[in-house]
Amino acid sequence: MAPSAATQSFKLNHTMLRVKDPEVSLKFYQDVMGMSLIDEHDGGDFKLFFLAYEHQNVAHRAQREGILELTWNKGTEKDDKFAYHNGNDEPQGFGHIAVSVDNLEESCKRFEELGVRFKKRPQDGKMRSIAFIYDPDNYWIEIIPNMTSK
Amino acid sequence: MAPSAATQSFKLNHTMLRVKDPEVSLKFYQDVMGMSLIDEHDGGDFKLFFLAYEHQNVAHRAQREGILELTWNKGTEKDDKFAYHNGNDEPQGFGHIAVSVDNLEESCKRFEELGVRFKKRPQDGKMRSIAFIYDPDNYWIEIIPNMTSK
Repeated sequence: MAPSAATQSFKLNHTMLRVKDPEVSLKFYQDVMGMSLIDEHDGGDFKLFFLAYEHQNVAHRAQREGILELTWNKGTEKDDKFAYHNGNDEPQGFGHIAVSVDNLEESCKRFEELGVRFKKRPQDGKMRSIAFIYDPDNYWIEIIPNMTSK
Repeated sequence: MAPSAATQSFKLNHTMLRVKDPEVSLKFYQDVMGMSLIDEHDGGDFKLFFLAYEHQNVAHRAQREGILELTWNKGTEKDDKFAYHNGNDEPQGFGHIAVSVDNLEESCKRFEELGVRFKKRPQDGKMRSIAFIYDPDNYWIEIIPNMTSK
């Protein structure tokens, strides 16, 4: 079945990840990853933060793709033992989000300088054209070249 | 820190989910959700499938946002007891992906007709403007209106 009239408006709008401490995560996704906080919603005992590469798209939040929604269940940040499950340790499921960049080497060099934790540097293993970093909750972020430059 | 020169090329390229049976998942994401299979990669003991709303963007796969990567670890589909973890049962982490649509009511009616399993229909609970459906691996997909129509 080809994409039909019924689905022609559909967009993959966002991916939601729970985060333990929004202060730490917002700093990471804004300062390190370069995303913008485009919206937030306080639900009482939880709060949602919507981040995106604003320079990639100026449409209304519901009319674009590539949004990251971070859900903070208030209070988790105060529990030293609390941690979310990243989907790669057992039980497995969700794997990673991926960010494409125009210069993998320069981007990874900058991540190193900013103290980002790497799961796989470009030079590790066989696949030289990808890297994996950890976000503050240990979710994996794959870094890939966008093929517009080397 | 504002988005800097160092991150101005960055895009949130894709989200990766592991799936048990690619035949079932590809049928669901193509026929029900209306996505196109834009690339695949056979890694020997695993295979990757890249799906996207192709009508939303014609750029190279690495230069766009909103891609769903499904990872199939070959053989899981033959194990009746095998199941991936959706991140919402304990231990929690990943929450959902979201698809925005121009007509929530019509889209949900069509999902019903196609036998899609609902976690939350629009009329369930307080939030009438969203629905949640399950994909074949029980991952949650939020369905939201894109605000271009009612």
